[in-house]
Amino acid sequence: MSRIKRAKAKKANPFSARNQDYYRYLTEKGYVQASGARKEFKVKPIGIIHSSLKESAGSPLQPRMAEGVKATITIYKKFTRGLKDLKGFERVWLIYWFHRAGAPKLWVVPYMDNKSRGVFATRAPTRPNPIGISCVRLLSIKGSKLYVSDVDCLDDTPLLDIKPYVPKFDSFPVKRWGWLEKSFDKKAKADERFEAKAKTKKEV
Amino acid sequence: MSRIKRAKAKKANPFSARNQDYYRYLTEKGYVQASGARKEFKVKPIGIIHSSLKESAGSPLQPRMAEGVKATITIYKKFTRGLKDLKGFERVWLIYWFHRAGAPKLWVVPYMDNKSRGVFATRAPTRPNPIGISCVRLLSIKGSKLYVSDVDCLDDTPLLDIKPYVPKFDSFPVKRWGWLEKSFDKKAKADERFEAKAKTKKEV
Repeated sequence: MSRIKRAKAKKANPFSARNQDYYRYLTEKGYVQASGARKEFKVKPIGIIHSSLKESAGSPLQPRMAEGVKATITIYKKFTRGLKDLKGFERVWLIYWFHRAGAPKLWVVPYMDNKSRGVFATRAPTRPNPIGISCVRLLSIKGSKLYVSDVDCLDDTPLLDIKPYVPKFDSFPVKRWGWLEKSFDKKAKADERFEAKAKTKKEV
Repeated sequence: MSRIKRAKAKKANPFSARNQDYYRYLTEKGYVQASGARKEFKVKPIGIIHSSLKESAGSPLQPRMAEGVKATITIYKKFTRGLKDLKGFERVWLIYWFHRAGAPKLWVVPYMDNKSRGVFATRAPTRPNPIGISCVRLLSIKGSKLYVSDVDCLDDTPLLDIKPYVPKFDSFPVKRWGWLEKSFDKKAKADERFEAKAKTKKEV
């Protein structure tokens, strides 16, 4: 590499210590926006969850209350290589898009309560970014198909990510869990309150 | 409501039983794409995580290995109403964008191993949709600021969602947790392998 090329390469590296200091100076002074302030990001489904839950009404609220509810996940061909080594895990996190959720609401009356709660203190789907997480049981993998159980996702849910469930990463002993301590109800079922159609009906 | 208006309203409701049957017919025959097949969705940050972790190198891998690492989260004003009732929870899930991650890779050599693993069997940030989940300790909330601990997120991380950590929803006793059973290492630290800059350097 010539001296000139090397000098150019050095200058072009946006992560050099010098450039990082300059970047920090610019963001602190407000001349540029920190990357976190970027207005939006795009996500694309890596597959689709096909489940027997066709409607919110009567569906289980969480995987814990969905024991035995099975689903087949079709992973798009271009992503199937990423499934290597997954079958060793008993449970996996599904990260998905609440495709049937209505418009975001900052206060919601959750299924297990009759008071308005801040949406970030609930698992309701009508969130500013309608992303859901569910820890389901992995039964088997065949090619690009995942067979799972304990699923609380509606049919046709767009899947964004799969992560292994690792007890040392994901299980925490906690003493306080807010309003749910008192109103947790194992038998509660979903209804249509968070569906897009509820709004459609009102608007009509 | 006049008879004509009522008739129009009935027709306009895309979620009527009749229209749903028709929709199912269309998707099954392949005439239209199921909603899960939508090509992309947009997410917008609800706030920014300000942490003391300025670089991947030397950072903790997971909240469990980040005990005492503190961060301040600034929630954008328009979303702060959604924080109501959150303070009752000891821990919360942060759902965020891996803003420093390099291009997606379907096989990665994770921090705790020296073999290539499918990315969906790891928690590496170079995922098709670079979304991370971390269960952190909630210390306090003051207005639009959240003070948290046990944080493994890099400074300036765009926050997409907050969910309460509910042991009855999120903690599962599992016996099998794949390749991590053998190679879990509590002392492992992150390095720069998944950073965007590694690619930048190669490209230069």
